[in-house]
Amino acid sequence: MCGTENERAGPAQKPTSSPYSQVQDYISQVGRYQIIESTLREGEQFANAFFTTENKIKIATMLSDFGVDYLELTSPVSSEKSYEDCKTICNLGLKAKILTHVRCNMEDAKKAVECGVDGVDLVIGTSSFLREFSHGKSMELIQKTAIEVIEYVKSKGVQVRFSSEDSFRSDLVDILTLYKAVDKAGVDRVGVADTVGGATPRMVYDLVRTLRGVVGCDIETHFHDDTGCAVANAVTALEAGATHIDTSVLGIGERNGITPLGALMARMVVTSPEYTKSKYNLPQLKAIEEYVASVVQVNIPFNNPVTGFCAFTHKAGIHAKAILANPSTYEIIDPALFGLTRYISITSRITGWNAVKSRVQQLGLDLTDDQIKEVTSKIKQMADIRPLAIDDTDSIIHSYHLNLQADSALQTKVVA
Amino acid sequence: MCGTENERAGPAQKPTSSPYSQVQDYISQVGRYQIIESTLREGEQFANAFFTTENKIKIATMLSDFGVDYLELTSPVSSEKSYEDCKTICNLGLKAKILTHVRCNMEDAKKAVECGVDGVDLVIGTSSFLREFSHGKSMELIQKTAIEVIEYVKSKGVQVRFSSEDSFRSDLVDILTLYKAVDKAGVDRVGVADTVGGATPRMVYDLVRTLRGVVGCDIETHFHDDTGCAVANAVTALEAGATHIDTSVLGIGERNGITPLGALMARMVVTSPEYTKSKYNLPQLKAIEEYVASVVQVNIPFNNPVTGFCAFTHKAGIHAKAILANPSTYEIIDPALFGLTRYISITSRITGWNAVKSRVQQLGLDLTDDQIKEVTSKIKQMADIRPLAIDDTDSIIHSYHLNLQADSALQTKVVA
Repeated sequence: MCGTENERAGPAQKPTSSPYSQVQDYISQVGRYQIIESTLREGEQFANAFFTTENKIKIATMLSDFGVDYLELTSPVSSEKSYEDCKTICNLGLKAKILTHVRCNMEDAKKAVECGVDGVDLVIGTSSFLREFSHGKSMELIQKTAIEVIEYVKSKGVQVRFSSEDSFRSDLVDILTLYKAVDKAGVDRVGVADTVGGATPRMVYDLVRTLRGVVGCDIETHFHDDTGCAVANAVTALEAGATHIDTSVLGIGERNGITPLGALMARMVVTSPEYTKSKYNLPQLKAIEEYVASVVQVNIPFNNPVTGFCAFTHKAGIHAKAILANPSTYEIIDPALFGLTRYISITSRITGWNAVKSRVQQLGLDLTDDQIKEVTSKIKQMADIRPLAIDDTDSIIHSYHLNLQADSALQTKVVA
Repeated sequence: MCGTENERAGPAQKPTSSPYSQVQDYISQVGRYQIIESTLREGEQFANAFFTTENKIKIATMLSDFGVDYLELTSPVSSEKSYEDCKTICNLGLKAKILTHVRCNMEDAKKAVECGVDGVDLVIGTSSFLREFSHGKSMELIQKTAIEVIEYVKSKGVQVRFSSEDSFRSDLVDILTLYKAVDKAGVDRVGVADTVGGATPRMVYDLVRTLRGVVGCDIETHFHDDTGCAVANAVTALEAGATHIDTSVLGIGERNGITPLGALMARMVVTSPEYTKSKYNLPQLKAIEEYVASVVQVNIPFNNPVTGFCAFTHKAGIHAKAILANPSTYEIIDPALFGLTRYISITSRITGWNAVKSRVQQLGLDLTDDQIKEVTSKIKQMADIRPLAIDDTDSIIHSYHLNLQADSALQTKVVA
């Protein structure tokens, strides 16, 4: 399954001391991946998305400031507004390069180039499903059209990507033949897309690794999340030699969406910490997610990596004890990297005395370990009866402390 | 990296005709995996979880009816209530077997057995992090204690699992030595846990595949979702020979939780459709998720696989066209399997005339293709200006249709 080495690939990332660092394959791109941020294209296909020009400008600017390499916009052929907005965003002078995603035909490509984009992302369905039920074209016709369109875009001095759609249900020989031809025609990137979200990491590794041996150009990957594998598929694609990952903020897109930018950052700050921290402005993530969530009127999922309300909340006594001694015991990501903090819950029946001790110290009270164990047992008893808020547990601690003082005062009085 | 074949493993699943079906490794367990549902243990560690006895009974009953193989409960040592509830659930006579998850010491194991559980899940941290900052025990002491406790539990005729915690940051030789010893001592399962949620699918494959060559017993796996890989890691573990997956409803657990039951079902109904459909009562999934969400006071994430509000919503014109011709073009999961339906949105600027045609037919109106293209263009113009609801697009269609009738009536009049 090997092949010609990617000419554009350099040395792999230096090993780090993290016990989670990756096997350092020569083919792996985890140490220098690029992000194609598609909130303004794939994200616009999300059921709730209706972006005004102002929304689009703000999202584009925030994402460019965050450090994504490319912004992908809805095809200017979709509507008059899409066309105008594409031109507007091209003229903002953002650091990120601007792409638009169009069907692989000359008319769409011309309209895209007209807008002043840095690159045109061509797409066509290659699976038997899409060839039969969508566009009805043969592989020969797809290849012929692709090469004409690629040559046109290149002649205008604009970057060009060629992607199949539904790549994992396409005939392997068909798509390798097609990718080889477009690579020879000089595309900057070929794209592999799991359009229906059914691929597993091992399928991704196999396809991307094989493709890496067939083309010399960059490889972009696009993963839908219907079966919950979009983040894992992205990191696996990089391990197999893919160079670019498509994301959207909170993963918004068709159906339940694609690889979310935030979850990918959580993944990559663990897999490739130095590169990820130096390249992307991680503390901005939460503000970007909150803005997009407000525009498309959704809540940030409670279980979102990094920014979910409980992503750094520790509850079980055994966890809290170790976290207090060393956060790395139960945290693979330091919340401070994203400008966030951890929280140790002591309001449940499964809390432990080490967690309570930490709260007692925060409250500035002076209790012995035996006293803390006693008050912990009171908290657990109460938590067995009803849900507790932090105010409740603080009251239990304060009242326990007051009683001790009263006892002690009484004793002093008696002795006196 | 090979080893002795798993003695308890039988022939691999029969190939299916799905283009997404897995490579049929002899080692793969994707065709006969079992679920250890831990909403009542891991889920109780979720920040918002406060389960009453009534909640626990209802969750246990629903999950047992759904078809999960095991239910794992909070340690009876945690609190008086945990102890009582554990006994209560053991006495319900559910189809699912009842487990409880305790620290690997004799006192906890005795309390567990006392409750009448079918199995005791022993756990201890084996990473250098946990050994230093949590319990402070050496590997020798861990092994000695483990074997004593295992022998005790077995002597009571109760199933026993031994799991390391933070397995992916543990020394490989250490944990293989330990697992080999407990396998010899007769455990029913060993457990591999990505306690901090930092593992990637390739790390999972490597560790589980290696372990599969070392032990003859079943292999349980437990994946946290801090870096968004918990579902992919689960399916990869099965491919590498793991037999059991830990889940919780909506993934609730410490921090942002573990492999969600629903997302795993989405994954496995694609990977192993016949087994998954025949074994698990998929149309119950939504009700179970809604009940647990209401108990822990969270919203079902908008982008949840299967049950997220938009999981089967199609919006882009090019998608809608193909979906109408054949749903498999852009759907890897048939929503009907989960008792759900698809929805084709026509309210946006990126809609297309095929989608509008389908709506025109639903409304029982009679328009030619050219007329539908004209009304589509009116919808796209309006959607460029403001967000549209389905009522709005229906009004545009109805008013267009009325105008046509009026024109036609007028023409008839003129002719007359």
